[in-house]
Amino acid sequence: MHDLVIRNATVVTGDAAGTVVADAGVAVDAGRLSHVGRVDDRNGREEHDAGGGILIPGLVNAHCHAADSLFRGLVEDLPLEPWLQTVWKAEAAILTPETCRLGATLGLAELALGGVTTTLDMFWHPASTVEAARALGVRIATGGIFFDGPGTDGGDPAARPEAAEAFFAEHADEADVIPGTFPHAAYTVGPDALRTAKAIAGRHKAIFHTHAAETEFEQAAIRSRYGRSVIRHLDHLGLLDERTVLAHCVWLDDEEIAILARSGASVVHNPVSNLKLASGIARIPDLLKAGVPVALGTDGAISGNDLDMWMAIRLAATLHKGATRRADAVTTREAFAMATIAGARALGQSHRIGSLEAGKAADMVLIATDRPHARPLFDPLTHLVFSTAKSDVTHVWVGGEAVVHDGRLVHHDLGATLAAVRDLEPAIAASVA
Amino acid sequence: MHDLVIRNATVVTGDAAGTVVADAGVAVDAGRLSHVGRVDDRNGREEHDAGGGILIPGLVNAHCHAADSLFRGLVEDLPLEPWLQTVWKAEAAILTPETCRLGATLGLAELALGGVTTTLDMFWHPASTVEAARALGVRIATGGIFFDGPGTDGGDPAARPEAAEAFFAEHADEADVIPGTFPHAAYTVGPDALRTAKAIAGRHKAIFHTHAAETEFEQAAIRSRYGRSVIRHLDHLGLLDERTVLAHCVWLDDEEIAILARSGASVVHNPVSNLKLASGIARIPDLLKAGVPVALGTDGAISGNDLDMWMAIRLAATLHKGATRRADAVTTREAFAMATIAGARALGQSHRIGSLEAGKAADMVLIATDRPHARPLFDPLTHLVFSTAKSDVTHVWVGGEAVVHDGRLVHHDLGATLAAVRDLEPAIAASVA
Repeated sequence: MHDLVIRNATVVTGDAAGTVVADAGVAVDAGRLSHVGRVDDRNGREEHDAGGGILIPGLVNAHCHAADSLFRGLVEDLPLEPWLQTVWKAEAAILTPETCRLGATLGLAELALGGVTTTLDMFWHPASTVEAARALGVRIATGGIFFDGPGTDGGDPAARPEAAEAFFAEHADEADVIPGTFPHAAYTVGPDALRTAKAIAGRHKAIFHTHAAETEFEQAAIRSRYGRSVIRHLDHLGLLDERTVLAHCVWLDDEEIAILARSGASVVHNPVSNLKLASGIARIPDLLKAGVPVALGTDGAISGNDLDMWMAIRLAATLHKGATRRADAVTTREAFAMATIAGARALGQSHRIGSLEAGKAADMVLIATDRPHARPLFDPLTHLVFSTAKSDVTHVWVGGEAVVHDGRLVHHDLGATLAAVRDLEPAIAASVA
Repeated sequence: MHDLVIRNATVVTGDAAGTVVADAGVAVDAGRLSHVGRVDDRNGREEHDAGGGILIPGLVNAHCHAADSLFRGLVEDLPLEPWLQTVWKAEAAILTPETCRLGATLGLAELALGGVTTTLDMFWHPASTVEAARALGVRIATGGIFFDGPGTDGGDPAARPEAAEAFFAEHADEADVIPGTFPHAAYTVGPDALRTAKAIAGRHKAIFHTHAAETEFEQAAIRSRYGRSVIRHLDHLGLLDERTVLAHCVWLDDEEIAILARSGASVVHNPVSNLKLASGIARIPDLLKAGVPVALGTDGAISGNDLDMWMAIRLAATLHKGATRRADAVTTREAFAMATIAGARALGQSHRIGSLEAGKAADMVLIATDRPHARPLFDPLTHLVFSTAKSDVTHVWVGGEAVVHDGRLVHHDLGATLAAVRDLEPAIAASVA
């Protein structure tokens, strides 16, 4: 007798062999997958009939600022640099640990409802993001931010290393929090602080996450300040290795791609944000060809303007076909892997999450297929990448525990959060007026 | 006492002034909008409380092949030309008037559920598409197809003009059917048949719709066959005027854009399909700047792989920002107009549909805003373009009649259609095996 058996599903495992099992399911014990495949002869204390839907690994959103959802739609039609100046003004006026928790709850709720079970989140007051994630029942990778100058949390740059260390002390060996260090970017964090952030992450064998090469303007600024392009600058500082996770990497020359490939660092592609902010189109096919691990992110809803991993998957799979005019520029399997196992790998968690395999955590998403855009359905992976929508997610489990049931959050009163955000809207609007 | 009053909405009229009215609604009489704005002192025999949602004009999908939904996900990872050869093989094996009706029902049901009230559809057996649209309660612009060679409906090219004329005779002066002529493309239809199709449309003051300049390969083929690029070829044949609607137009030089602008012809942008089929990225900002009317389409689900006008809107608004690196490349208002009034104008129907204005048909869509991705909500238009999803559509009216209520089709048993498609899936799969 298992803790939980899910049956009557097509299981897209997302494992290295691309295994898909029809008329199948999973068995779960103590939060882990004890069996993946045919479950006809298995019983559970709890049973779930998947109704013929598709069961997939929980999605991993490898770059987000969930609490920035508070500023959705506030600053529009600007490229990154002037946009960021206005965003920071709004953040400085509004953000407290309490509003950060509210914003993170809003963002992570949207993500959970869309099937995201693990999110890498860079934001001020990371303790608030952890609280929000725990209240919803999802996993979070976050930690101390680094930023020269006070930052919109009013923090003292000199105190940030200590705060980053304290985050590790508080979250050692937890299943739901994946700690790391989160310097904002090479254009807002100087070499010393970047090295300090990397050293702290290194001591804990943890991830080091930063924005890199998002815009042409950034590349020019770093080159003029340090005499090297962004990736060369990071490489020169000794910051690139397999525990380094770089968001964006839109502007890379061939040699920077080779440097990344040699280093083992992961790149997080954020196509929705890169288009909206006019940053450009990342060279994802070239990165994949060079062997750079590419994960996928939503970025924040302030640029997005939502947190829809399915939109990101769809764009990861189609944008580069259109931009390079090669119909195989990114394969269907590569696009799905970006949102699952590659995200897990970037976070150093591929032994635990990112695919449905016996022994891994039971982070699972059920996709309904009783929808007009799901018929006909010849290949489940093609359906997942090219016609699944966030609204097709009906059930989500994290470590075998249901966090979304029938399209509703299990542990959280979404109406209360939406009402609280609504109450805050006049103040948010006034912050940039 | 009105026939219908909708209240408690934010009304985004989509009119020329961009009027948005908060705490408002509409009154409907005899299928038309009799009032748009404050409705506090108005009563209806039927009343609908919009629950604080956003009421918008019904979307116009200006390029589709709804029945091609039968082949969703069947032919993948190929550029247009080899893809089309396989598609035609599948179509020839499967399509009959009955399967066309089934496929059109599947496609138009998906569109209706997403808020599309009018679709321009090019496909074999257009009578079947009309039947499907009528059963669902939506408007359809379609008519006789022209194609050199037998076509996948087995039709005789010599009989096509007569069939096209018969379609006009059958559908003169109807509110729900907008007839036109639909030659496939300059590379599949010779100059004589193109001119015949245009002459028939002209006699009825009706639209002439064709694919044009979708791929670089097509441009090269037409140039080699006729010594002129696609748009120059169509112009030389006298086919371009304000009743001409050209799908795609991805590959245009500056002079072709000028020719289009002078002609008054509309272009239909299909970003989802253009990316998926590796066709390229259309020069939409340049077309808009030149004054070419640009409408928006989903294309067929066989390329898409769904029929999601919200995805198309989102891409129309963001793809060109990223591709041109100009954050104002396509404005929010332009993107919304493409999916509403510009589509109505392309179809010659802007006096009747495409905006919520007194006197126009009551084609309306209600967008729910009690969703995490809808808060905060500072500007309704920004929300519609950048964070609304098809699953936010809860109610749809066509001519004041409900066709979608609480996210369900009013006139149609979707389950029966999905089951019928499922039954056909083995035969469809076998058609390309």
